[in-house]
Amino acid sequence: MQQLIHSLGQQARQAARQLARAETAAKNKALEAMAQALLDGADDIISANTRDLDAGKSAGLDAAMLDRLSIDAKRIADMAEGVRQIIALPDPVGAISEMNYMPSGIQLGKMRVPIGVIGIIYESRPNVTVDAAALCLKSGNAVILRGGSEAAHSNRALAACIQNGLRKAGLPESAVQVIPTTDREAVGAMLRARGLIDVLIPRGGKSLTERVASESLIPVIKHLDGICHVYIDDTADIQKALKVAINAKTHRYGVCNAMETLLVAEAIADDILPALASSYLAKGVELRGCVRTRAILADEDIKAATEDDWSTEYLAPILSIKVVDDLDMAIDHIETYGSHHTDAIISEDITRARRFLREVDSSSVMVNASTRFADGFEYGLGAEIGISTDKLHARGPVGLEGLTTQKWIVLGDGHIRG
Amino acid sequence: MQQLIHSLGQQARQAARQLARAETAAKNKALEAMAQALLDGADDIISANTRDLDAGKSAGLDAAMLDRLSIDAKRIADMAEGVRQIIALPDPVGAISEMNYMPSGIQLGKMRVPIGVIGIIYESRPNVTVDAAALCLKSGNAVILRGGSEAAHSNRALAACIQNGLRKAGLPESAVQVIPTTDREAVGAMLRARGLIDVLIPRGGKSLTERVASESLIPVIKHLDGICHVYIDDTADIQKALKVAINAKTHRYGVCNAMETLLVAEAIADDILPALASSYLAKGVELRGCVRTRAILADEDIKAATEDDWSTEYLAPILSIKVVDDLDMAIDHIETYGSHHTDAIISEDITRARRFLREVDSSSVMVNASTRFADGFEYGLGAEIGISTDKLHARGPVGLEGLTTQKWIVLGDGHIRG
Repeated sequence: MQQLIHSLGQQARQAARQLARAETAAKNKALEAMAQALLDGADDIISANTRDLDAGKSAGLDAAMLDRLSIDAKRIADMAEGVRQIIALPDPVGAISEMNYMPSGIQLGKMRVPIGVIGIIYESRPNVTVDAAALCLKSGNAVILRGGSEAAHSNRALAACIQNGLRKAGLPESAVQVIPTTDREAVGAMLRARGLIDVLIPRGGKSLTERVASESLIPVIKHLDGICHVYIDDTADIQKALKVAINAKTHRYGVCNAMETLLVAEAIADDILPALASSYLAKGVELRGCVRTRAILADEDIKAATEDDWSTEYLAPILSIKVVDDLDMAIDHIETYGSHHTDAIISEDITRARRFLREVDSSSVMVNASTRFADGFEYGLGAEIGISTDKLHARGPVGLEGLTTQKWIVLGDGHIRG
Repeated sequence: MQQLIHSLGQQARQAARQLARAETAAKNKALEAMAQALLDGADDIISANTRDLDAGKSAGLDAAMLDRLSIDAKRIADMAEGVRQIIALPDPVGAISEMNYMPSGIQLGKMRVPIGVIGIIYESRPNVTVDAAALCLKSGNAVILRGGSEAAHSNRALAACIQNGLRKAGLPESAVQVIPTTDREAVGAMLRARGLIDVLIPRGGKSLTERVASESLIPVIKHLDGICHVYIDDTADIQKALKVAINAKTHRYGVCNAMETLLVAEAIADDILPALASSYLAKGVELRGCVRTRAILADEDIKAATEDDWSTEYLAPILSIKVVDDLDMAIDHIETYGSHHTDAIISEDITRARRFLREVDSSSVMVNASTRFADGFEYGLGAEIGISTDKLHARGPVGLEGLTTQKWIVLGDGHIRG
């Protein structure tokens, strides 16, 4: 298995050199051909997908998993549209910035360049195959894709469309490789492929991400949890607080930037919690509160929160609520129980807002805005490959720029060091 | 041992939160007090160092190692001066960039913040204790230092001065911790301290760096080799080529940005190699060449290069020379044998210069300038913690900015996602 990964890795490395110097037009041409091949190959893709779905049903996959796995004409059209959106994004590769003359006379700047070879390890959603391939290609990287075994036929059919596109644009087909085995050993071999894969991006459930993070000998871009907080300070504008706290929880439940814990300053809790609670309950959100929260709300409206609630990402219509003394206690809570994903303060006080922005150590920190904004599209990155709660290299939504790095460039006229 | 590292790590994590919000003035005050404590404590430092030197002599350390280990009044003055230079650098923490209004109405930007807890693993030079502490402090990070056992007394005496400085500025002493044991197990425990140490920086010989890189479960900023190339294209200006090729090799021999292999285009080799060779030989540089190089130079001037020579970092007055057909072959050679550190082309042809800049995948790529410029001071970063040949996070010389990361910040006015 290590040998298979080694051979795929070496082919990817070769392809990466070609991709790094590929012109934007060639990459866009390949993307357009990919999009067209997906639409033209819809029948093949759907029939491969049917084989996966049949096998999944026999294996007893639940309805949610089967839904994530399934591909129909609408989903194919969405994938093709996603690829065309990536065509429209500016090419990050080759951008030169901060070019200045130094005291020695050399001209020094930075050039944005691809990382090299990206490994993506993901689970049942076959659309990741297309998204990840398109983002890596546009950013000039070769990619090795390892999808879930339950989607093997679908992924192979999608890969055929992708390689069709690469061929049409004269780019190497090994720029995008799908691992041709469902052997679980392949993941382990990828995690050890130092020197062949430059960075790994796991996309899937927490247990997959945890395994990749704990075993990988290669840098990983990931997030484990999205335990996002909204803190309503006693200086908050009540109307803004209500709007943001409702949106952050109820706009969508199953997403990593949804609020999971609401923190409310004691001095404003009586004024805002009853109205907030009735809005949540009207939307069917289950509430779990601390002692002080439960002293304010009616017993039938709220359960007692346990210690575990503060560190749980529900991804569901459930919200934990804690009344805190002040900003210090709110920040302490966030640093203790949070996942460094996205946290917001609602306050009209500029000094408290400045402290929250500086002191909360999360990938996105917000003032008077919904945590739901933490997203590649909202941040103007276009498509995103994921969200990182790591601190190094890429933090927060990761778009094309997060798939690149910078090298220093120096221009001289025979300059030597004295 | 894992427990000791765990406890140091937790103290560092606490200190890191205080450091992250420390004002520039407080950090500079601590640095000035550190510098003064080093000067005032010179006698104690030198007597602690004498104990290390005596033990080193008994243990049979060679003269070069003893020299690296030794501290005299001049070296203490240099350390204090180094700390004062870091005071003069701008504080990177809190800088906000790219702040723009997005279509949704939110204001989005990035704030530069410390990474958190840095681990430094180094060998005999005790001045690393002071340099690393000062750089980490200025960039708002807590640091855990693990020096060589041969410098244990010296490092403890230096740490006392550093903690003196922290105390005087009201900053937590656990911001800078020296591991209080020479047990080799401590390094292993640091490599596994995920969640407590955010990034490791090895500083020392190649075997130390290789161990850290191959065993670490934490991100590492490092470089292994500096196999730097100068390629003299046939479009080169001969005078510039001579100047740069001599400087890149002979300005200093034991440094990672010195040229180790010279590549010369066949069409210009006859015109330039004899003059170059006589300059090198006059400076006592041993030459090892490929067949075509040796056909041009006199037998007594050059040895035959072996395959190993192309991937050797001599760090010595030795140079390997290869005649190549053209730019393509030069780039191939660099990508095959180089270490992605620093490579230069000498050419008057803008098309070839552009190709070299784009296609050579090294942390610094240069046109008509000496590889010796790849350095934190020359790049205007001030002091550097090291040079990275990795692609993620920090690439090339790593200064204060490389010890920080960025988080997204969002300002709204009650904005919610629709």
